[in-house]
Amino acid sequence: MPYELYYWDGLQGRGEFVRLALEDAGAEYVDVARGTKKNGQGTDAMLKLMGSKTEPHIPFAPPFLKDGDLIVPHVANILLYLGPKLGLAPKNEAQRYVVHGLQLTIADLVAEVHDTHHPLATDLYYEDQKEAAKVRTRNFIEQRIPKFFGYFERVLKQNPDGDTQMAGKTTTYVDLSMFQIVEGLSYAFPRAMRKFGQHYPRVAALRDAVLERPNIASYLDSERRIPFNESGIFRHYPELDQDAK
Amino acid sequence: MPYELYYWDGLQGRGEFVRLALEDAGAEYVDVARGTKKNGQGTDAMLKLMGSKTEPHIPFAPPFLKDGDLIVPHVANILLYLGPKLGLAPKNEAQRYVVHGLQLTIADLVAEVHDTHHPLATDLYYEDQKEAAKVRTRNFIEQRIPKFFGYFERVLKQNPDGDTQMAGKTTTYVDLSMFQIVEGLSYAFPRAMRKFGQHYPRVAALRDAVLERPNIASYLDSERRIPFNESGIFRHYPELDQDAK
Repeated sequence: MPYELYYWDGLQGRGEFVRLALEDAGAEYVDVARGTKKNGQGTDAMLKLMGSKTEPHIPFAPPFLKDGDLIVPHVANILLYLGPKLGLAPKNEAQRYVVHGLQLTIADLVAEVHDTHHPLATDLYYEDQKEAAKVRTRNFIEQRIPKFFGYFERVLKQNPDGDTQMAGKTTTYVDLSMFQIVEGLSYAFPRAMRKFGQHYPRVAALRDAVLERPNIASYLDSERRIPFNESGIFRHYPELDQDAK
Repeated sequence: MPYELYYWDGLQGRGEFVRLALEDAGAEYVDVARGTKKNGQGTDAMLKLMGSKTEPHIPFAPPFLKDGDLIVPHVANILLYLGPKLGLAPKNEAQRYVVHGLQLTIADLVAEVHDTHHPLATDLYYEDQKEAAKVRTRNFIEQRIPKFFGYFERVLKQNPDGDTQMAGKTTTYVDLSMFQIVEGLSYAFPRAMRKFGQHYPRVAALRDAVLERPNIASYLDSERRIPFNESGIFRHYPELDQDAK
């Protein structure tokens, strides 16, 4: 039975980190909210499951994965669950906590990216918090990007098994997620990211290497890859983008 | 060998969710940053480990747990790792992803609590973002507390094994974390939380039940429990607290 991925239709958002792992592994999956009503899919099917009064394991928010009766919510948790099944986790059990820890740091970064355009409230319009967004984004570009990517660069450099993957000897789901955040930030903040490859050469090389993986390349060329847009996490508002220090 | 917990000295913060699990289980642990230099402990020892140029698995930020050579970062990851060892995880493997998912929802809530007093930047003073903090906190109290706790109340209600624990038949680490967020929010926002028990009776009952666990009760009475204060996640700034709807 194919995996069922539940995430909002029309944007990459947090669901994209899961899609990249499923696509890289060539796994069978249904992107439920993007399906048709006639097949019992679509956004209504997702909302119905979320609003269920009997389901024992209701998720707080998308994305969540359904595998048979089990519902697994949160990107990092889904990847923890899928990683070994997709061949995208370390064989060593202890190492899985290391990879999961890196994924949780990415989750924190993603939340901070979201808050650059929504610093005051998720349910207020961007236009109503634009001034606060400018302050928060300046701080994000000047302080937080260097802090996060300085860290990721060190993680690659200090990996005793080589600096071409974040942990262990083989590509894991966290490497695919690293690709996605570099792509997303490059879309949202092209000016701030201009010298990214100079400052973080190992991270940039990892991004390039993921791009060359055959299943990723063909996914990115397909209609399944939704383009970046201003409904997602990574939004290009030119007034927020600025030269990094 | 006792577990080594690394977290900032002088505040409960995110470290407290780990402490509660260790204390409830009566596990041996060292709270490293609170130790003395003479024993090779203290904040400097923590910073030295974080700044290591050779350690293969450096954490991005505290808290992190060291168990032998393994370093496990992020609260939810630490609890995922410790849960089975401390007898605070479900026996059923699949159920562990459910409990972990709930803990990750709590992690998101904790990040939102932090941002009520620091909506623009973590490294700016509260005084320099007080007006933004008022807007964000109003939204948090009016929209986010009901959304999160309405969800947690449903999780308890829909647990087929009973509404006295979040998942499965037995107390898990996520129940202890639920206690901590109710305590923390009650400290930070006493006005907003005044009718909490009426609105969310199952969550309130869970909080009371955790308080009666002998090891938790004796921990809370000990000097190991740092009082809530304005360096932590949950801060009482009266100007932010207000009546809930």
